Amino acid sequence: MRVDVLAIGTELLLGQIVDTNSSWIGETLAAVGIDTMEHRKVGDNLGRMTTALAEMLEKSDSVIVCGGLGPTQDDVTREAIAAVMGVELELHEDLAETIRAMFGSRFRDMPLNNLRQAEIPVGASAIPNPIGTAPGVRAEIDGKVVYAVPGVPYEMQLMVNEQILPDLLARSGESAVIVSRSLKTWGQSESGLAEMIAHRVDAQTNPTIAFLARGIEGLVVRLTAKATSEAEAEALIAEEEIVLREILGGLVFGIDDETIEHAALHALETRGWTLGVAESLTAGLIGSRIGAVPGASRTFRGSIASYATDVKRSVLGVEAESVVSEECAIEMAIGAQRVLGADVGIAATGVAGPDEQDGQPVGTVWFAIALPDREPEAFTARLPGDRERVRQFAAISLLNGLRQRLDSLA
Amino acid sequence: MRVDVLAIGTELLLGQIVDTNSSWIGETLAAVGIDTMEHRKVGDNLGRMTTALAEMLEKSDSVIVCGGLGPTQDDVTREAIAAVMGVELELHEDLAETIRAMFGSRFRDMPLNNLRQAEIPVGASAIPNPIGTAPGVRAEIDGKVVYAVPGVPYEMQLMVNEQILPDLLARSGESAVIVSRSLKTWGQSESGLAEMIAHRVDAQTNPTIAFLARGIEGLVVRLTAKATSEAEAEALIAEEEIVLREILGGLVFGIDDETIEHAALHALETRGWTLGVAESLTAGLIGSRIGAVPGASRTFRGSIASYATDVKRSVLGVEAESVVSEECAIEMAIGAQRVLGADVGIAATGVAGPDEQDGQPVGTVWFAIALPDREPEAFTARLPGDRERVRQFAAISLLNGLRQRLDSLA
Repeated sequence: MRVDVLAIGTELLLGQIVDTNSSWIGETLAAVGIDTMEHRKVGDNLGRMTTALAEMLEKSDSVIVCGGLGPTQDDVTREAIAAVMGVELELHEDLAETIRAMFGSRFRDMPLNNLRQAEIPVGASAIPNPIGTAPGVRAEIDGKVVYAVPGVPYEMQLMVNEQILPDLLARSGESAVIVSRSLKTWGQSESGLAEMIAHRVDAQTNPTIAFLARGIEGLVVRLTAKATSEAEAEALIAEEEIVLREILGGLVFGIDDETIEHAALHALETRGWTLGVAESLTAGLIGSRIGAVPGASRTFRGSIASYATDVKRSVLGVEAESVVSEECAIEMAIGAQRVLGADVGIAATGVAGPDEQDGQPVGTVWFAIALPDREPEAFTARLPGDRERVRQFAAISLLNGLRQRLDSLA
Repeated sequence: MRVDVLAIGTELLLGQIVDTNSSWIGETLAAVGIDTMEHRKVGDNLGRMTTALAEMLEKSDSVIVCGGLGPTQDDVTREAIAAVMGVELELHEDLAETIRAMFGSRFRDMPLNNLRQAEIPVGASAIPNPIGTAPGVRAEIDGKVVYAVPGVPYEMQLMVNEQILPDLLARSGESAVIVSRSLKTWGQSESGLAEMIAHRVDAQTNPTIAFLARGIEGLVVRLTAKATSEAEAEALIAEEEIVLREILGGLVFGIDDETIEHAALHALETRGWTLGVAESLTAGLIGSRIGAVPGASRTFRGSIASYATDVKRSVLGVEAESVVSEECAIEMAIGAQRVLGADVGIAATGVAGPDEQDGQPVGTVWFAIALPDREPEAFTARLPGDRERVRQFAAISLLNGLRQRLDSLA
């Protein structure tokens, strides 16, 4: 089965917004084994949209159209689908009521324009939009099917996951339930990871096992299972997850939406330990990542970005001569414990560039982790890339080091 | 003149990489007044690429193809162009020499596969690639023109700017030089900004004036001038820039690649003042943005992310009862001056969410700026959005406040 994607919006062509919707849909389709072979963007122009949709339907079994469902006159996706079907639009009174009710619940009067969103091509049906005013459209045309969804990513994703994917799978003769789980890893290259689990990837057809690169955030191993019930699919995934975790060990830091800082904060919280950070080249980035986690305040005391050398000395009590050294990192971590009143102190200091420092080349970074009642530990890395990449890499390296150190205590 | 974009790569369809190239090209074309009406992505498949290219050339005056110029067997953009032209590929010995020389200069042996990159369709010409091994291709087909460039963004952008745009403008009968300048603004809505300069936008045809939204980083007013020489184009832009700056005043914080933190650091450095930060809800984000600017170490002393309330008291000397208050922000700014030994102290404290704090709703933030020998000043805002958006908005609000406060001294 082949499903292609048509993204609508002049702002996409002009580069004012990057089309991430078609990428997300392509990834989502691939995860359930549906082919996608062409994605297009066209502007808010009825003639060009109609032509594009008709051309795409000739090649594909289905087209998902994103965008152009808004209330204004230049939102003409409904009209384009009607044109390809050769029918008129008709007002659906039940949709109009739903839209009026959404405005009512927000204490706002509905502009009359919004009634356009209750119009659906004759013979097509509406796809409910539980979180926005624009319903989607589902239309069968000569044995093929067009789905239209809003361009707002969150609304689009919900409607694709909950309405369109099950419908596509049913059409393809699959009565299966699809369940995915992402094992998130950090610290191994894609080829290294592939080698470690090659025998599982080759052996497994259900769940399938795929790799997704997430740049500096690591690599995702995604399991996707098909079964006749959700419980069965979950069981298939759980079984394979145990095997993969056995092989991957400490490389796995979490699943699905969890970040490394989630994992580290969780490990700290289960021990009742608080965290303090001392950072130099990252200048606050490590603290900022930790502070981004909701509920961080239960564990996170704060971060001291001691950018200037004499601030390292006066605030954190660093005595090491070189600020790019093991001693400095350890003194910073201990300083973070003491000054911030934290059980655990972590630190990063090094050379982000563009120039070398203390005779150390760009990318040289020292890290330290001080746990309660234990000798502080340091480690170093020579990080690749430019200033920003070194800073980002340093932040995640330290967070991952902390996560692994805490796991090793368990 | 209409120029469309065809992006090549199965990884684009599968969502492993988001296609930002076509957005960049669309924005770049729009800036010089060239229409772009359809962008497509197809995978590394000769048949589908050939069909897509032929279909697109029927509608458009020119197609820019991105990607598929690599050395491996699945890079078939050269073959697709040859197929549309109805010709064979031929090896260009001069290109082969250039590619060999690039490998030589990197002390690596050239895989034989790379010779594929020296093959060009008969009747087409190469577009030099000064920074990579893959030359581009320029082919005329029935009075239309196809350009192929690598998918690596930096190589693609250089080749579009330096080779393809001048060629397109020459084809369109323009012998003009194009110069653009972006005036970067913060603090006014798009409709507000549009109203302020509507009479200039309406009156001006050269330079043209366009708006580009940059999300939380503000709005860009882009001037694009055409003239017979660069000097003349620069002069046209300089003249309009004076008029616009007069109208926009302090909303403009910089041009082109400058960020608000660049502007703030520059204003501090010209006075010889150093900067210290105290931050709460942003947890290091403000320091991190400042530390991202190369050369920040000349001005930036550090940042204290006092996340826990008692850290605000013990490290920064805050005595205010509520940590979401004017008094607290001011005491934090003064604490940053003192503890970090900085001439200027700035601070942000507030409620990022998801829960309210000290009886204050999510999004309530207090900011303070303490300059040497002046009373500290505070301001407040009720920022919209979720936790991450409130944090990001708080960081840039304070940096912009600092930039404006320093400018007002001048």
